[in-house]
Amino acid sequence: MPRSRRTDEVSQYVSRLGSTRTAARLRFPGGFSGASRKPRRVAMLSVHTSPLHQPGTGDAGGMNVYIVELAKRLAAINIEVEIFTRATTGSLAPTVELAPGVLVRHVDAGPYEGLAKEELPAQLCAFTHGVMQAWAGQRPGYYDLVHSHYWLSGQVGWLAAQRWGVPLVHAMHTMAKVKNAALAEGDTPEPAARVIGETQIVNASDRLIANTAEEADELVRFYDADPAAVAVVHPGVNLDRFRPFPQGSDELRPGNAPSGRAAARARLGLPQDALIPLFAGRIQPLKAPDVLLRAVAVLLDRDPSLRSRIVVPVVGGPSGSGLAKPEGLQKLAARLGIADVVRFHPPVGQERLADWFRAASVLVMPSYSESFGLVAIEAQATGTPVVAAAVGGLPVAVRDGVGGFLVQGHEPEAYARALGRFADAPELVERMGAAAAAHAQSFGWDTAASATADVYTAALSDHRRRARAHHG
Amino acid sequence: MPRSRRTDEVSQYVSRLGSTRTAARLRFPGGFSGASRKPRRVAMLSVHTSPLHQPGTGDAGGMNVYIVELAKRLAAINIEVEIFTRATTGSLAPTVELAPGVLVRHVDAGPYEGLAKEELPAQLCAFTHGVMQAWAGQRPGYYDLVHSHYWLSGQVGWLAAQRWGVPLVHAMHTMAKVKNAALAEGDTPEPAARVIGETQIVNASDRLIANTAEEADELVRFYDADPAAVAVVHPGVNLDRFRPFPQGSDELRPGNAPSGRAAARARLGLPQDALIPLFAGRIQPLKAPDVLLRAVAVLLDRDPSLRSRIVVPVVGGPSGSGLAKPEGLQKLAARLGIADVVRFHPPVGQERLADWFRAASVLVMPSYSESFGLVAIEAQATGTPVVAAAVGGLPVAVRDGVGGFLVQGHEPEAYARALGRFADAPELVERMGAAAAAHAQSFGWDTAASATADVYTAALSDHRRRARAHHG
Repeated sequence: MPRSRRTDEVSQYVSRLGSTRTAARLRFPGGFSGASRKPRRVAMLSVHTSPLHQPGTGDAGGMNVYIVELAKRLAAINIEVEIFTRATTGSLAPTVELAPGVLVRHVDAGPYEGLAKEELPAQLCAFTHGVMQAWAGQRPGYYDLVHSHYWLSGQVGWLAAQRWGVPLVHAMHTMAKVKNAALAEGDTPEPAARVIGETQIVNASDRLIANTAEEADELVRFYDADPAAVAVVHPGVNLDRFRPFPQGSDELRPGNAPSGRAAARARLGLPQDALIPLFAGRIQPLKAPDVLLRAVAVLLDRDPSLRSRIVVPVVGGPSGSGLAKPEGLQKLAARLGIADVVRFHPPVGQERLADWFRAASVLVMPSYSESFGLVAIEAQATGTPVVAAAVGGLPVAVRDGVGGFLVQGHEPEAYARALGRFADAPELVERMGAAAAAHAQSFGWDTAASATADVYTAALSDHRRRARAHHG
Repeated sequence: MPRSRRTDEVSQYVSRLGSTRTAARLRFPGGFSGASRKPRRVAMLSVHTSPLHQPGTGDAGGMNVYIVELAKRLAAINIEVEIFTRATTGSLAPTVELAPGVLVRHVDAGPYEGLAKEELPAQLCAFTHGVMQAWAGQRPGYYDLVHSHYWLSGQVGWLAAQRWGVPLVHAMHTMAKVKNAALAEGDTPEPAARVIGETQIVNASDRLIANTAEEADELVRFYDADPAAVAVVHPGVNLDRFRPFPQGSDELRPGNAPSGRAAARARLGLPQDALIPLFAGRIQPLKAPDVLLRAVAVLLDRDPSLRSRIVVPVVGGPSGSGLAKPEGLQKLAARLGIADVVRFHPPVGQERLADWFRAASVLVMPSYSESFGLVAIEAQATGTPVVAAAVGGLPVAVRDGVGGFLVQGHEPEAYARALGRFADAPELVERMGAAAAAHAQSFGWDTAASATADVYTAALSDHRRRARAHHG
């Protein structure tokens, strides 16, 4: 089936879908209640990755952190959250309390291990069956709203919202059409089945939450989303964890930022006076860690003396299409002749990650697409500037020339020039680091949670108004 | 992920699933009613192929005929049938009456064209949503039972049965584990996602309908099905269509069988006195049309004179993994030097197919796996013997040495020997043809429908008994 003809079929389908947007809702066991009010309890869906998984491994990335931190802050403002996720181990109880007011429900859908994310579409009926089984014991109206994350959960959310007669709020996190429009060399395009699935969810959702204005625009441009249904809510950062000094450490003296970085370098066994450009995240073509290595090679060509005072940590594990060549990056470092300055480190927990951010001179994010790039804000919150590709949400996360530098495209020379500015003027790390930390303060999870609650409330009142109109 | 470790994961999952078999059923909006009775209305699910499609094209094969003929005969015994199938054209109305008491409901799930069967798992939520949308207008208890066909529909049936609180009866038609255990050379194994999906359906179904005792045994051996839940119902043949003489034709005189064959050969422009071994069906490795061609080459080597009085029609179109090399068979015929005697013919309608059967000396079915092989019974009903591989349901469909010959394995020499017997003794065609026609009479669709209705009744009464026990 020639690619072009398939895309016509898909686009014809999109336009056909558009016409059903005003399809009447179904029964409303939850009943109606007048004034617009916050939901009491939300069913949150995260089919392919559990909030209890450690970010930076397998499919657990920014989305995990997003769901955990958001759910905790929603509970703090009296919105109970129950997170449904696929069981991937027999050692966890069916229900686990993650925090007061936040429950994780493990749903049995396929074997614990051995199922890649790409094989999960065939498990969505099993997952839906498990969600309905868990809900069956509750009274009608138990959930006021469904909030799904990523397209796999969106398909289940579509059925759950229909079954419970409640609104569906969906967050894509990543979009197939956006990824396919900016494919990294050697990366595999996302399948048509996902494009179709996402298109259906955009059409079925009462509200879509985008991390940035740019993502909101992509929803409208690529998926024909109704602009009035798209809300921009910047993800938050755990400011208690990501801060210049670890919580409770005694060096809490303003203006003493260097000791924060120096203390972290001491803890991690890193040289105090080195230039340390850090990569932290899942190792896959989309995140382009290879661009950092090539930029370092350019830097060392230009100034061989730098070799004795540069350390390039790569913290994270292969994932997605990166799994195909897990040792690809080590081989590249050897081919570029910089294996001596590059240090590979497996994924670390959140506390340890904060220390790596503190120790770094600069975080480097040369990604090809990044819906928001939570990691960029986390690094800045620890007082470390960021050099990032000007894609996706990164131009919102990083203020160019203030808390770091934005780079157009993915040419190693351009990243070498940005890194070179920190090599030539070490004080730039501290000056930009302080501005970065200030910028990060406006990205706390409390802000994100209350903005999300507003979206919920709007979705609920729209949904009720349509229900009243439908039932006359 | 090494294949062996994946299979352990899947088998661990199978045993884990087994323990949930007695999981209590959910709410019962349909209410209870005492004595065991036939269902009034059945929701039949056929996601990937429409009963309105012409068999022998795309994915439309024996299953289409099965569903159409069964539904018509169920309606004739006052069981209304509503068949849900995925919409694959905008030109058909959402609801089409196929026959009195048989409705076809077209469900919008993904683009009409461009989606291969392998991409449909990602559309099962969309399909389920459409089924619930269509049902939403009906009163509770509208459907008494769900009967799903093939694993894709089984997953949807699992959710629909849960939602409506009714029993699920499932017919696999083909099974991934059976196909993978007897893979034709060059054929691609079925994915783990399908094996897992089928395993879940076996566990969720109240009854499983198998076409033959052998298929029933495979359900128990490969999928750990509960033997008490497996019922054997032989598929039926449309005896009004598949008969020695077309309905209404005047040559209806017993003992005048040759004129039936002669008349058909005349209509099809085939030589009256030739040996005509026929292949009819989807051209894919699983059906092994290549074995027939190689057998013919062996025959012609042994007796070159036969070349002037043999015609080998291949009636059908490429499908499934056969699509990869649609012209593969033509090239093989040329390589074997028999292109002059082989005639390729696109798929034909049922009436025309009956004529091809009548005209043939013998139908050849060298399949690697065949859940039942409806085509074998249809050919015999027209008075034509069958040479078939002794796999799946074929040993039930063909009585070895009476209505044809069963061949162990897939060696061309073995099939050449069987065909050679018809070449050497032309009267064998008529003698075996008459016995074959008599054998076929016990496979009418009325028999299949009443047996199916009994399975429905048993499933309903079991389901009610469990519901009463559950609700005390």
